[in-house]
Amino acid sequence: LNYAYLAFHVTNLPGMLAGMRAMPSFRGLSVTIPHKEAIIPLLDEIDPLAQAVGSVNTVTNDGGKLIGSTTDGRGMLRALADASEDLAAKNVLVLGSGGAVRAAAFALACETDAAKVAVYARPSDRLWKLQADLAEAAKVPVTVDTMADHLDSAEALGAFDVIIQGTSVGMTPNDAESIVPGNWFREGQVVFDMVYRPHQTKFLRDAKTAGCKIVYGIEMLVHQAALQFETWTGVVAPVDAMRAAVKELI
Amino acid sequence: LNYAYLAFHVTNLPGMLAGMRAMPSFRGLSVTIPHKEAIIPLLDEIDPLAQAVGSVNTVTNDGGKLIGSTTDGRGMLRALADASEDLAAKNVLVLGSGGAVRAAAFALACETDAAKVAVYARPSDRLWKLQADLAEAAKVPVTVDTMADHLDSAEALGAFDVIIQGTSVGMTPNDAESIVPGNWFREGQVVFDMVYRPHQTKFLRDAKTAGCKIVYGIEMLVHQAALQFETWTGVVAPVDAMRAAVKELI
Repeated sequence: LNYAYLAFHVTNLPGMLAGMRAMPSFRGLSVTIPHKEAIIPLLDEIDPLAQAVGSVNTVTNDGGKLIGSTTDGRGMLRALADASEDLAAKNVLVLGSGGAVRAAAFALACETDAAKVAVYARPSDRLWKLQADLAEAAKVPVTVDTMADHLDSAEALGAFDVIIQGTSVGMTPNDAESIVPGNWFREGQVVFDMVYRPHQTKFLRDAKTAGCKIVYGIEMLVHQAALQFETWTGVVAPVDAMRAAVKELI
Repeated sequence: LNYAYLAFHVTNLPGMLAGMRAMPSFRGLSVTIPHKEAIIPLLDEIDPLAQAVGSVNTVTNDGGKLIGSTTDGRGMLRALADASEDLAAKNVLVLGSGGAVRAAAFALACETDAAKVAVYARPSDRLWKLQADLAEAAKVPVTVDTMADHLDSAEALGAFDVIIQGTSVGMTPNDAESIVPGNWFREGQVVFDMVYRPHQTKFLRDAKTAGCKIVYGIEMLVHQAALQFETWTGVVAPVDAMRAAVKELI
């Protein structure tokens, strides 16, 4: 494939996009913090999911038209699908309210047949914004609320088939922490942690001990990139090679 | 070295440069036809040689300041130096009046201690412009005039120590042509042909037969690029590897 993928620090977003527009073979770019929201009004077309989330992580130069999309949430769906996890009719829990959780929640609520999607986190303006925005966009039943009030027992956690941890709890150097007591997990649950440093968090370790099926955080990282790769090249992404490269780097 | 060098078709020069300015690690770029002249007013600083020639083939992003320079002529000087050819006190002839000849003539006239530099070509507006511009900038004696009037015999050609062919005569598919009769060369002359397709033109073959030292056209191509490489990276260019890559490509 005649492509190169390079990292650039961007000091002027409109200028950078002028450069992209001036080079028709500049096929696409990945967008990360702090440009994911600011780039939206500068593009020609925004994919409906990215518009709903209010965040773009992918720009594709389609014959001079710059199209914004987001693979953050879809990457998580694909990480679960790759682990043979069908979300149809499942009860899905997402913990947290940051950007990745928002993207995941919209993908779950708008692009799956889950029975129910719950998002629990500490109270914050962004949690209430997510509550309001998701209520409007969701195609499946959604609850967005405070974690302290709704996740207070093993029974409460046990009601979910799929649990997605999206806070920074348990991230290096706080490897010994987990957002829920280890003995609340039950056998048969599918447990995913967006944290990928360490590779296996305490959250995942506890889940594994309890007999849950676990999916590592780097899977979301790899699959959001694989989706970008496929958008730009039209070729199936070499996911195993990408995963190996990420593992080596991390 | 953490660099990648990629080719882009540019449809909007100011936009492209806005992109370069927006990415501080975008270190430099090569400029080719049709942008070598149009880029000058868009840059922040122009090297005096490039300013005199009126052509930029190199842009360097120096901490946000875009500096234009030209390595076309200096690349030719370096090709001759690489062939152990010292131009001090030599009589140098350049044939042609195109962009590469113009660059070579300025480098010869402004950056060497040649005894004399002559440029002969068919009469044209650009020849007369070169005549006027060189007369103003040259640091060594320069003659720019019509070839028919000044290069009419073996004696006339024999007056030069170094002969640089810069017209397209002899270029594939016209491999059998040469701009001067083969028997005009004399032993001891240094003969260079800017044409690099074919690798050895009739002009060079005739010169070699006459006992001249010959320098191939790809040397100028390689050395103008080596100078760019060194400007951007600060590292001595791997000229042998570059030459091998060019030969493979051509």
